[in-house]
Amino acid sequence: MRLSSGKEREVLRTIETIEELKNWVQGKKDAGLSIGLVPTMGFLHEGHIKLVETAKKENDEVLMSIFVNPAQFGPGEDFERYPRNMERDKQLAETAGTDVIFAPSADEVYPRESAIAISAGRLADQLCGKSRPGHFDGVLKVVTKLFHLAQADRAYFGQKDAQQLAIIESLVEDFNFPLEIRRVETVREPDGLAKSSRNVYLSEKERSEAPHLKKALEIGKEAAMDGRNPIPLMEQHLNANTSGQIDYIQLLSYPDLTEKVEGEAILALAVQFEKARLIDNLLFNIKGN
Amino acid sequence: MRLSSGKEREVLRTIETIEELKNWVQGKKDAGLSIGLVPTMGFLHEGHIKLVETAKKENDEVLMSIFVNPAQFGPGEDFERYPRNMERDKQLAETAGTDVIFAPSADEVYPRESAIAISAGRLADQLCGKSRPGHFDGVLKVVTKLFHLAQADRAYFGQKDAQQLAIIESLVEDFNFPLEIRRVETVREPDGLAKSSRNVYLSEKERSEAPHLKKALEIGKEAAMDGRNPIPLMEQHLNANTSGQIDYIQLLSYPDLTEKVEGEAILALAVQFEKARLIDNLLFNIKGN
Repeated sequence: MRLSSGKEREVLRTIETIEELKNWVQGKKDAGLSIGLVPTMGFLHEGHIKLVETAKKENDEVLMSIFVNPAQFGPGEDFERYPRNMERDKQLAETAGTDVIFAPSADEVYPRESAIAISAGRLADQLCGKSRPGHFDGVLKVVTKLFHLAQADRAYFGQKDAQQLAIIESLVEDFNFPLEIRRVETVREPDGLAKSSRNVYLSEKERSEAPHLKKALEIGKEAAMDGRNPIPLMEQHLNANTSGQIDYIQLLSYPDLTEKVEGEAILALAVQFEKARLIDNLLFNIKGN
Repeated sequence: MRLSSGKEREVLRTIETIEELKNWVQGKKDAGLSIGLVPTMGFLHEGHIKLVETAKKENDEVLMSIFVNPAQFGPGEDFERYPRNMERDKQLAETAGTDVIFAPSADEVYPRESAIAISAGRLADQLCGKSRPGHFDGVLKVVTKLFHLAQADRAYFGQKDAQQLAIIESLVEDFNFPLEIRRVETVREPDGLAKSSRNVYLSEKERSEAPHLKKALEIGKEAAMDGRNPIPLMEQHLNANTSGQIDYIQLLSYPDLTEKVEGEAILALAVQFEKARLIDNLLFNIKGN
């Protein structure tokens, strides 16, 4: 059979309804196949690709969700203008090894206002949660739904969104979800900038400054490992080398996000550029006295 | 092999740890068997037995949990003195057709303080939720854990705890839990008193008055179906025929528990006797104008 000239090759299956997703999941479960879930908001970059590749190694089937979740955007945030490109996403996802995409509408995911609420509590009082009230409650809402719908054996999250990861790990532990959360390391540009869908918002000048976020983290990490306060050094570096406004710099225990830092720690920052708010972090161990 | 003389016949398997439960569940899932979950706080009565019998008809395996959940008792409530009798429960559960009991300790269920919270929101502002702040949040906490641990196909709840049922139905719908909630009708004594583990708290005199709860509901239902206000008639009946204090009488839509009553409605009451707070309700349809 000859394809009509303008037709693209067929890309991987995309499911848009919950009913169709349930049928797909049931089929895989009945066949005894394991499912790895990669939740995304689309506009894929190498960070997402690494999630898929990791999931592919550990599961029979890789399900990627692409859903720009309105519940996790606050008023005045970038929900409307969040970058989207479904056709490009499908091709990247397939090349990486995704077996099926779940890309529902907002009405499909939220057919009615929820009566029951899940909240991130004190874990949202730090870092991004402080600047983005309600953000992590919105993340928990969609992630809980996706976990239930996908009935995945494992779900994959990038370490770049380290607070999100910590909160989702708590969700799973606190409520005995029958799946494993897999942390995947941050993927960076050659100059150190963490991959992010929001990097497209940067002006040329801002893009050239952005690698200093990672540099500031490295300076801070060295100080923290020596028992010195990393914050002033990092502030100084960022103010000297970028035009962005520092939203926060924090050193906390990880994943419980308390002030007591001994053992696993997170050094994290957020910098607001003109159209993009960028975040980055390093996880490392701090020895006790 | 001869049993030693004092030995009771072996009753059904009782699982006390989450790890052992996970293994049991995985075995059933691998074998393609369906699981019906009957969550209880033990001290079983005919209401629980009916839940098991219904579950037995609809599933390959019936898992009963017996757990007096501290999270759903408020300060000053009857957690410590809530009636318990595990040996009797095991025999009743087995006779009814239960395949396995999950009876964990509180430390097993709650090994640490939860960081993430689930709350019943406005659904808890009415009926029992009003008199028992935090009660339904505690129910949601344990029920979410049990749903995840049991990976049940269906879970069985009695209509007697109608607000609990409504809130759990909302939980499942709002967050796409992959299981079905099955409502089971209230089981009553021959004189109409709804079966409850707390009936053992009643004095002889209170026990003789208690059937008037159901009578008051019937009087109220008749009034509500005629478009009259049921509350004053019910108050009058209860005050004339029982020594208990009325906690609430409410007519609400069901299961969304709003004041607008057209279609499915709940007429519910709670009466505080000396040592027992009894609840009861009727569900019925009210025609619109």
